[in-house]
Amino acid sequence: MVTSFFVMKKGITVLLLLTVIVIALNITDCLATATAAAAPKQEKTDTVEVIATGYTAGVESTGKRPGHPQYGITFSGVKVRRDQVSTIAADTKLFPIGTLLYIPGYGYGVVADTGSAIKGNRIDLYFETIKQVYEQWGKRTVHVEVLRKGTGKLSQAWLNKINQAIEAGKPIPQTYLES
Amino acid sequence: MVTSFFVMKKGITVLLLLTVIVIALNITDCLATATAAAAPKQEKTDTVEVIATGYTAGVESTGKRPGHPQYGITFSGVKVRRDQVSTIAADTKLFPIGTLLYIPGYGYGVVADTGSAIKGNRIDLYFETIKQVYEQWGKRTVHVEVLRKGTGKLSQAWLNKINQAIEAGKPIPQTYLES
Repeated sequence: MVTSFFVMKKGITVLLLLTVIVIALNITDCLATATAAAAPKQEKTDTVEVIATGYTAGVESTGKRPGHPQYGITFSGVKVRRDQVSTIAADTKLFPIGTLLYIPGYGYGVVADTGSAIKGNRIDLYFETIKQVYEQWGKRTVHVEVLRKGTGKLSQAWLNKINQAIEAGKPIPQTYLES
Repeated sequence: MVTSFFVMKKGITVLLLLTVIVIALNITDCLATATAAAAPKQEKTDTVEVIATGYTAGVESTGKRPGHPQYGITFSGVKVRRDQVSTIAADTKLFPIGTLLYIPGYGYGVVADTGSAIKGNRIDLYFETIKQVYEQWGKRTVHVEVLRKGTGKLSQAWLNKINQAIEAGKPIPQTYLES
């Protein structure tokens, strides 16, 4: 019985060890997946995951209006350009001025500019007009849920009321969902 | 000792059970994450796929400047609004004025406006500023290819030449890819 007890004890130790190993492997796997999804990926040495927005030379992006001596002039000194190789803005710590990138959905971009919000893995892609940023970069395909079919009319009072109702933390009252 | 043996056996059973539960939970968790990330969603009958862009009340979107009598007034007559329920533009043949949608990544939107380019499954989401359209709707995560690391300088002549080379339909000459 003493032997059997020790065998038992050994068995428990092995079981415990196995348990710990299997759980650890599972957690490692899950963590690896989570990390891969969240962290900026370093795939091949020459491919980098970045977050890209569009910008123009205009006042909404640069604070400068046409007529300003530096209007349309990038940090590097070259003029903004949307061409085969366009001028883009980046964090020069990551991509020094003159870095040539290929950006899927945009084309070739050369780092010519910087920006106060363009830090780390953020880049800004130059477009000639605000409309082009909206149309060529700011488009998303989404699946919208139709909660209520409109009657063809909308009143300010209805819009105020439904906003107040939701603001108060309530679900949308059924009366607002009936057409 | 017999009691102790049974207690041991019971202990192992409990341990084994716990192991199975913990592993199962870990795997379920991982699978759920993978499914949520990868699988195309089963659409309910009241879900519609649309292409969504952002817009503002400003001149770049509406042609109207502050001071214009119709500035900030939607087709329906209500004022533009970014709130719990925001005003959006749609093709009224598909979504009549007053239609209430839930738009992932934006929130609730009520069809209040129209637009010359907003036909069929296109919708326009109202934002208060151009910057908000860029930052809150016009952001993409992309994998960029680094073709050449910059030297910290960029000349107009280099940019002109590389553009001419690509314009001529040639691949980028090797000399442009060396830092």
